[in-house]
Amino acid sequence: MIGIFDSGIGGLTTVKAITDRLPHADILYFGDTARTPYGSKSADTIRSYSVENGDFLIKKGAKIIIIACNTASSAATDLLRQRYDIPVFEVITPAVELAVKTTLNKKIGIIGTRATISSGIYEKNINFLDPEIKVLSNASPLLVPLIEEGFLDTPETKRILKKYLIPLKTRQIDTLILGCTHYPILKDLIAAKAGKRVKIIDSSTAIAQSVVNFIGSHENGDILTGTSGRRDFYVSDITPQFGNLAKNILKSTVNLTHREL
Amino acid sequence: MIGIFDSGIGGLTTVKAITDRLPHADILYFGDTARTPYGSKSADTIRSYSVENGDFLIKKGAKIIIIACNTASSAATDLLRQRYDIPVFEVITPAVELAVKTTLNKKIGIIGTRATISSGIYEKNINFLDPEIKVLSNASPLLVPLIEEGFLDTPETKRILKKYLIPLKTRQIDTLILGCTHYPILKDLIAAKAGKRVKIIDSSTAIAQSVVNFIGSHENGDILTGTSGRRDFYVSDITPQFGNLAKNILKSTVNLTHREL
Repeated sequence: MIGIFDSGIGGLTTVKAITDRLPHADILYFGDTARTPYGSKSADTIRSYSVENGDFLIKKGAKIIIIACNTASSAATDLLRQRYDIPVFEVITPAVELAVKTTLNKKIGIIGTRATISSGIYEKNINFLDPEIKVLSNASPLLVPLIEEGFLDTPETKRILKKYLIPLKTRQIDTLILGCTHYPILKDLIAAKAGKRVKIIDSSTAIAQSVVNFIGSHENGDILTGTSGRRDFYVSDITPQFGNLAKNILKSTVNLTHREL
Repeated sequence: MIGIFDSGIGGLTTVKAITDRLPHADILYFGDTARTPYGSKSADTIRSYSVENGDFLIKKGAKIIIIACNTASSAATDLLRQRYDIPVFEVITPAVELAVKTTLNKKIGIIGTRATISSGIYEKNINFLDPEIKVLSNASPLLVPLIEEGFLDTPETKRILKKYLIPLKTRQIDTLILGCTHYPILKDLIAAKAGKRVKIIDSSTAIAQSVVNFIGSHENGDILTGTSGRRDFYVSDITPQFGNLAKNILKSTVNLTHREL
């Protein structure tokens, strides 16, 4: 069973990317919709929520954990790896590796929540791989609420997106990391606003490929033994809005189960 | 001691309105910034958070409680009144009474969070006072994130606001209730977009006046006996962003104390 958690519904973009590649995998998802969003909260608070989420997935039988939230990945990965014996994946490293391979002019841009950007984790990981790369980041805190409200192709979203991207474009990035699992929902719009010369790195598909590689390797193949494509979706709060967004992302109706915190 | 809670920082507009009128009152504030916002969450979740918040204020010595959050007021007032022996004020009734007195054409508009609007509490309370009044409401869920991000006078905020107000304007309301304690921060902009003929009812000042009247009455005067204008501000999460917003609302620097949940 692959355990996946996110601050809310956005992490389902990672579920979609994984199940597109591994349709028979058993998926256990937890979205912390009662405390969403994490992106404007402090690192300490995000860590304490992430431990609760990880413990829940393990109690329910997860054999690997994916932190499908850039904010939680940036704040809580080390802590969860110390705490658990099973593999803990985060969404930052796969996107970083792909971006470093992709850039030609060594200028990579990143957009994400306030907490993710201020953690500086993308800069640190990119420059660990290649110290010559210039990393330009911009917090884009209104994108998550706009996406959750279904403002997907409106003039307001376009304007706000333009505002967030201008400082990165004027400094001529050729690669842009979508540093939040909500953002793939706006991928086409972001690509259009970023311009033809900018390659978009989607952290959801990057992590999915990384998990597929891990499971596909000889010694980890048994994670899929006996699985039947089971999907369990838990959330800490249920509203019609969350259900609609989940359906929009997964392209199918989803049964969300309420887990009381 | 007057205990006041909100889902976050917005309830400080109520604190400001009360301390402007009662500078010597002792104020104990709790903002649930670790779980903000409440407005997109379910009524059950909002109720359970509200009970925790109320219990905290009482443990700290509150003699009256003000629910300075329309979302929590709409979901949890009855529950808190059953639970506590002290007076529990909510922000809806004073705004409703003022709006009913103000309207001439008997068409009142309301904007608020998704949870507040879908509770239907404004319609119910207005029509209890005057069944002939037509109540037109529109959920405006992006206003809180825009305010929290400091998009106070930007073209995007103006456009989104216009979108939220059009259905109310075309149906010719003459009175508009700001059904969220964040919205007074945008009061001038909202008034401009609503048009000259629309009177704006601010739930923060309405509740403040109602508390002043209550305390000013003979039998409740002792709530202010021996008070010295003490201010204690607790929040469940601290970030620089929350501090800036608090300062912006109260027009003075604020010491926020972290309360672990």
